[in-house]
Amino acid sequence: MRGIEKIRLDDSLQKQINFIQEIDKIKYIERKTRLFNSDRHENDAEHCWHLALMTIVLAEQADKPIDVLRVLKMVLIHDIVEIDAGDIFIYDTFKNHTNTEAERTAAKRIFGLLPAEQAEELIAIWEEFEEGATNEAKFAKSMDRFEPLLQNTSNNGGTWREYNVDYQQVFNKKKIIKNASASIWNYAEKLINESVDKGILKKKMV
Amino acid sequence: MRGIEKIRLDDSLQKQINFIQEIDKIKYIERKTRLFNSDRHENDAEHCWHLALMTIVLAEQADKPIDVLRVLKMVLIHDIVEIDAGDIFIYDTFKNHTNTEAERTAAKRIFGLLPAEQAEELIAIWEEFEEGATNEAKFAKSMDRFEPLLQNTSNNGGTWREYNVDYQQVFNKKKIIKNASASIWNYAEKLINESVDKGILKKKMV
Repeated sequence: MRGIEKIRLDDSLQKQINFIQEIDKIKYIERKTRLFNSDRHENDAEHCWHLALMTIVLAEQADKPIDVLRVLKMVLIHDIVEIDAGDIFIYDTFKNHTNTEAERTAAKRIFGLLPAEQAEELIAIWEEFEEGATNEAKFAKSMDRFEPLLQNTSNNGGTWREYNVDYQQVFNKKKIIKNASASIWNYAEKLINESVDKGILKKKMV
Repeated sequence: MRGIEKIRLDDSLQKQINFIQEIDKIKYIERKTRLFNSDRHENDAEHCWHLALMTIVLAEQADKPIDVLRVLKMVLIHDIVEIDAGDIFIYDTFKNHTNTEAERTAAKRIFGLLPAEQAEELIAIWEEFEEGATNEAKFAKSMDRFEPLLQNTSNNGGTWREYNVDYQQVFNKKKIIKNASASIWNYAEKLINESVDKGILKKKMV
């Protein structure tokens, strides 16, 4: 290896390790939702791991061809910005859930710890996820909406009951699953309707 | 969609969802190692997420070409067998760390929740990781050894001090990093030597 090439690699490696240490912090970011059949809140690292596993096994349910590696990168990194910007509850009506300026600044700072090319690549993947326009981003977002639906139904209504969320709000947030997979949406819609029948999701807000 | 094809897909989806619910349990499996600069133990889901991120940013440090998607699948699923078989501490001298019969049985039961083809694929990927012969498995294993090294050095010796582990034991476990990446091994070896110099890793067991 030529000397200059080796120095470049060493320098890259140190930047990569700085990033690896920094992102450890997402293990402390607690979500509102709780683990399956549990009272314990899920943290962002566990959530991202679970979306990655869902992507691996559910990719074949996608209606359009998807680049699974790209979707995995998306779901694995999508919450890293919360290290600086914090987790915003999806049914929070006071704060805008996505694309906040704080998240953009966070993306620049945290991914910016990496060598320039990698930083650019991961920021682009994160922006693609936020925008939600490509098949990969649609699939990644459907995973992000489907996991808490499974968790809430396993937890007797979970955050829906805890935060007084009704059928229409849930339906509006979950319907984007349809943009990725008809079969998963079919399953999700059935779960939502069953939740109303069981009385763990209210038909109208009171 | 023809009726019979739809039934097959629905049946596959239910199996996939059963698997997705089952693997939630790895969030309760506590490792011996602790988070960076922390007293809090890491759990298996957090650990697998971190190895996946390390894979994404460190893949370019691999000495041989690797299929990143395959490595990601490996690191994301490699600890799922611990749901049934439990976590065995790498410096445990009484138990064999890898390839135990309990882990094989666990792999069959847990991946066996999936549709047959997917179960076979993931069991094969898990076995490839355990065997450690391919470039992908070597890289995945190097990530698995590198993360706790970074954690222990950030934690003033961490599990080395807690369990009276010495330089030679650490060196023997970590040296396989060299099979994946000379630059990462170079960095790792420097960290190990510095740890001895700082007195957070003993030269010889007492």
